[in-house]
Amino acid sequence: MTVRIAVAGASGYAGGELLRLLLGHPDVEIGALTAGGNAGSPLLSHQPHLLPLADRTLAETTAETLAGHDVVFLALPHGHSAAIAAQLGDDTLVIDCGADHRLTDAQAWERWYGGAHAGSWPYGLPELPGQRDLLRSARRIAVPGCYPTVSSLALAPAAGLVEPEVTVVAVSGTSGAGRSLKPNLLGSEVMGSLSAYGVGGAHRHTPEITQNLSGIAGRPVKVSFTPVLAPLPRGILATCSATLATDEDIRAVYEKAYADEPFVHLLPEGHWPTTGAVLGSNAVQLQVTVDPDLDRLVVVAAVDNLAKGTAGAAVQCMNLALGLPETTGLSTVGVAP
Amino acid sequence: MTVRIAVAGASGYAGGELLRLLLGHPDVEIGALTAGGNAGSPLLSHQPHLLPLADRTLAETTAETLAGHDVVFLALPHGHSAAIAAQLGDDTLVIDCGADHRLTDAQAWERWYGGAHAGSWPYGLPELPGQRDLLRSARRIAVPGCYPTVSSLALAPAAGLVEPEVTVVAVSGTSGAGRSLKPNLLGSEVMGSLSAYGVGGAHRHTPEITQNLSGIAGRPVKVSFTPVLAPLPRGILATCSATLATDEDIRAVYEKAYADEPFVHLLPEGHWPTTGAVLGSNAVQLQVTVDPDLDRLVVVAAVDNLAKGTAGAAVQCMNLALGLPETTGLSTVGVAP
Amino acid sequence: MTVRIAVAGASGYAGGELLRLLLGHPDVEIGALTAGGNAGSPLLSHQPHLLPLADRTLAETTAETLAGHDVVFLALPHGHSAAIAAQLGDDTLVIDCGADHRLTDAQAWERWYGGAHAGSWPYGLPELPGQRDLLRSARRIAVPGCYPTVSSLALAPAAGLVEPEVTVVAVSGTSGAGRSLKPNLLGSEVMGSLSAYGVGGAHRHTPEITQNLSGIAGRPVKVSFTPVLAPLPRGILATCSATLATDEDIRAVYEKAYADEPFVHLLPEGHWPTTGAVLGSNAVQLQVTVDPDLDRLVVVAAVDNLAKGTAGAAVQCMNLALGLPETTGLSTVGVAP
Amino acid sequence: MTVRIAVAGASGYAGGELLRLLLGHPDVEIGALTAGGNAGSPLLSHQPHLLPLADRTLAETTAETLAGHDVVFLALPHGHSAAIAAQLGDDTLVIDCGADHRLTDAQAWERWYGGAHAGSWPYGLPELPGQRDLLRSARRIAVPGCYPTVSSLALAPAAGLVEPEVTVVAVSGTSGAGRSLKPNLLGSEVMGSLSAYGVGGAHRHTPEITQNLSGIAGRPVKVSFTPVLAPLPRGILATCSATLATDEDIRAVYEKAYADEPFVHLLPEGHWPTTGAVLGSNAVQLQVTVDPDLDRLVVVAAVDNLAKGTAGAAVQCMNLALGLPETTGLSTVGVAP
Repeated sequence: MTVRIAVAGASGYAGGELLRLLLGHPDVEIGALTAGGNAGSPLLSHQPHLLPLADRTLAETTAETLAGHDVVFLALPHGHSAAIAAQLGDDTLVIDCGADHRLTDAQAWERWYGGAHAGSWPYGLPELPGQRDLLRSARRIAVPGCYPTVSSLALAPAAGLVEPEVTVVAVSGTSGAGRSLKPNLLGSEVMGSLSAYGVGGAHRHTPEITQNLSGIAGRPVKVSFTPVLAPLPRGILATCSATLATDEDIRAVYEKAYADEPFVHLLPEGHWPTTGAVLGSNAVQLQVTVDPDLDRLVVVAAVDNLAKGTAGAAVQCMNLALGLPETTGLSTVGVAP
Repeated sequence: MTVRIAVAGASGYAGGELLRLLLGHPDVEIGALTAGGNAGSPLLSHQPHLLPLADRTLAETTAETLAGHDVVFLALPHGHSAAIAAQLGDDTLVIDCGADHRLTDAQAWERWYGGAHAGSWPYGLPELPGQRDLLRSARRIAVPGCYPTVSSLALAPAAGLVEPEVTVVAVSGTSGAGRSLKPNLLGSEVMGSLSAYGVGGAHRHTPEITQNLSGIAGRPVKVSFTPVLAPLPRGILATCSATLATDEDIRAVYEKAYADEPFVHLLPEGHWPTTGAVLGSNAVQLQVTVDPDLDRLVVVAAVDNLAKGTAGAAVQCMNLALGLPETTGLSTVGVAP
Repeated sequence: MTVRIAVAGASGYAGGELLRLLLGHPDVEIGALTAGGNAGSPLLSHQPHLLPLADRTLAETTAETLAGHDVVFLALPHGHSAAIAAQLGDDTLVIDCGADHRLTDAQAWERWYGGAHAGSWPYGLPELPGQRDLLRSARRIAVPGCYPTVSSLALAPAAGLVEPEVTVVAVSGTSGAGRSLKPNLLGSEVMGSLSAYGVGGAHRHTPEITQNLSGIAGRPVKVSFTPVLAPLPRGILATCSATLATDEDIRAVYEKAYADEPFVHLLPEGHWPTTGAVLGSNAVQLQVTVDPDLDRLVVVAAVDNLAKGTAGAAVQCMNLALGLPETTGLSTVGVAP
Repeated sequence: MTVRIAVAGASGYAGGELLRLLLGHPDVEIGALTAGGNAGSPLLSHQPHLLPLADRTLAETTAETLAGHDVVFLALPHGHSAAIAAQLGDDTLVIDCGADHRLTDAQAWERWYGGAHAGSWPYGLPELPGQRDLLRSARRIAVPGCYPTVSSLALAPAAGLVEPEVTVVAVSGTSGAGRSLKPNLLGSEVMGSLSAYGVGGAHRHTPEITQNLSGIAGRPVKVSFTPVLAPLPRGILATCSATLATDEDIRAVYEKAYADEPFVHLLPEGHWPTTGAVLGSNAVQLQVTVDPDLDRLVVVAAVDNLAKGTAGAAVQCMNLALGLPETTGLSTVGVAP
């Protein structure tokens, strides 16, 4: 089987990572590559690492250009996906790397993103309870945000075993912000500096983490979420903690939860996750411990925000929805050091 | 007045930063510079940035070499300070950048550091309530740890106004670990990677933060502390949070607490601290907010771990103890970008 | 004496560095701070490290605003300096950090920059032969480019002792490009990557290096110049080489040339320059050797492009032109590690 | 066909990169993994990115352990390869990533490395003229050094068309130095700094570059080589120049030379190589230009020092020697940004 795919937003970081992974996918043929302002320019000007596509020129992002593919990946600013998806056939697999269809609660959407809610699509985090089966039959999939991916996987097994207020401080590389021309993302200002942003519950990924953990716990979970920007291109390291409300062996809980997962790895005791170890890979590395002085669970998780945090998850979901082996074209081997 | 100073441990990072600051101090004359294994080698081999001291050779760290100075700075591994201080006159001002005399509780010392407790010295964080006056008459001063400095200053004004369980996730540059030849501190492994360590209350700075906040609050405060290592040489960004237990205007509380402090700056609303902005300076930059969904205080603080986090604090304490203006030789201007 | 200064272009990197240094200058009072597109915004939004100026707002860059100061620093894009300087009194000291008045050859100017040549001003590199005296009486000074500074100082003592064709490969941090919002300057693209630009003599600093070395040698010197962009905010490391045409002891030549220079340091044998050692300082570190297999001189030089490479040189020139000690407010101590 | 391979030196950076690539090679089964001082410890402690090998423990490097494999990769300090290879069967393919068998001239070996020369093996740079065929039948292969790889490929097509004195300044990430516990390789000292080393022809890769270029040119070529250390883990960007001695269209020469090479890419005009674009890949990106003022060829080349610069070349050579398609298990797609 050869699947013909298109990527809308191919000049951005998420689009580039999708293409990097898809170039290594044995069952995929790369069709239309589109962009907004960068339409008409060579792909190589934006993605100098994609040598096998060096002869490609970016087309305009339109439904016409994207039509006629088996799978369409959308890597667009939020607010643009619904209109395009509506013009693609129902049997086209549409995988949205943007935020438009992640939240199920229209009110939450309006509070955090503004404008009308476009509705929710099956949520592309197969490792959440019950989620994998939903994705097998999906033709519209919402890829999770990078922070929600790592935070949810870090806390999911314990969501019902802790007090319903959790703290997440997630340190991230800069590519999560996309190729945005903002002064605070310039190399000169990023290198040698650390900064927090969206503090106090102001980051749009907060409701998504809340939705995931509340869904698993079966009751409202409150999330104190702070993202920190650090001087590296890729990677998120999340430190997640909550007061334990169980006597269970929490390590055993995590071992069991992820025993069969191909991409989520609870490290052996004494080993702690690093983002360097998952660079370019679809792996999530986890370690758990309990602070004895506070009886507080602390989970540390590392992920590549562009890979498992975005484009890798998108490919994983494509595999599931197409009935391919879930790990096709994806790796758990990072590029280190 | 010219003060003659000596530095024990002059080949390390803390020693180098002490000398950098002292070279710009108008009232100081730099005397003996000593080291352990590096004794006998040129200072320039270890501190290539200290050109005015390019003709200096490191002496052996002994009480004899250190004697005869007005001020002796100790930048040694823990466990070495008490023996040396005992051999220096009582009127010599001894300022210990190490951990030996920070903890007042001998049991805590033994639990976290092992071995016999050498006793506690006046704690060199003048911004803590009542602390400045103690330092004016001190002849032995324990400089705080870098994480305790930033965490304590971030939470001190609110210590009595929040539930007595706080969470601190502090992201740090690598110089905090000193010039230790460990694989995980190599550039190849640090750059492009993030890692957590000492998770679950296992870092030795935990009892020091606990001691500070409990002392201010007048009741036990529990601290969930996680340090994260990030790819930059200097700087700590701490995200500190706790559930509010007050209706007071928390920003006003912070404004009042630090209104007259020369080095602690609550930023104007809308501005968030970055470690780049305090690089090389003695400033602490703070911002506070309240997460409305959890009624949780979140404070973000930035500090240069080698400056205000270690050597700058030592110079500030020296100024106080010698009756000099507290800010002499110190700056609130960072080196950025 | 208190000198009242103004900075045009105070929101950029060069402007910020000027202010950082001037805040530590004992004889200076900081007057008008102006900007182009950033006029009207708080200085702190652009220069978060300049806490003592946290209450300042940027004014519009106009001759009226800049008038009435003893010294006016211009940190503007090229092409803007001449018009402004013409409106400032002849007794105002105008120090231009831009390129407008560096080249003496109008044809060279037109080839490299385009447009009409605004004429040349005394060239602010006091370490070049005969240059210091010219600057003492100057009221208009052109601060050298960062690459020409380090390359010229590296090769000046040998300019007449080598074959008249030299090779310079200079690796630079990103701040040399200013706060330009270009994709290739984003942190995500800079970190973890190296790139060359302006290759093959296409960089505008080429004619300036050529002018300097030819002037010293008293005959045309050809310069093969390649700048390389590396992942650090500040610093240039230049590797300069040329075939020797002398039997003189080349190290002795360099020792003699810079023996009395306060900022140019030939390191002891066996020590090699690093940009980290000069960060934030006005020092230039040099080392020289001869490749025995090619009888080729190789000089390695390190400088902070924003300090001695731009703003530090500007302050050094101000000191000279005002009759102040040349080193006032400047340091040879870097901020390391 | 399944090839059983062993890696000696599996705890180092080259060994880790070999395993990363071999895990993605369809025809390989990973056998013995050995180490020196790290024998007995889990591979994961040293290579946390190699999750599929998380259950492996390192064995001692002995001929016995390495025997019985089809291919043995040696990633050892220099001086160790000959003795081990002598104990492995002649039909075992031995691929040495170290320096022992690269130089053909015993005198050069003794001058640069000291000790007795172990003899030379077929040189594993298939892109050099005539080299590919030699490798197809080899059972002993010497993988080139990282600097010689990029420098030789940059200059090979022009080696006979330029004056026989070339200048190479190659900026490198830190992993080229291996996992050596030296202070100057610590993250704190590497980040934010640039340094040169082995200046003036003192680096051991100089004779190897000289050997390659002289061999191609058919006459002695002198090489002025300077390596520069920059703050990134991986990547070399080499700027290579020489005076042209031809009127040929030099771009056409390069286009022809590399038209059929799967891994060496002359970029379209206007595009310049970056190391970020080749990270983790086996590609070499090149661009050429001529400086009109000096009639000097300037070639810029980018390579990942651990991939095509070491381990990727080793796998490419293995493919050739085993009769597999040369590109099996190797990619020209980098991991960017």
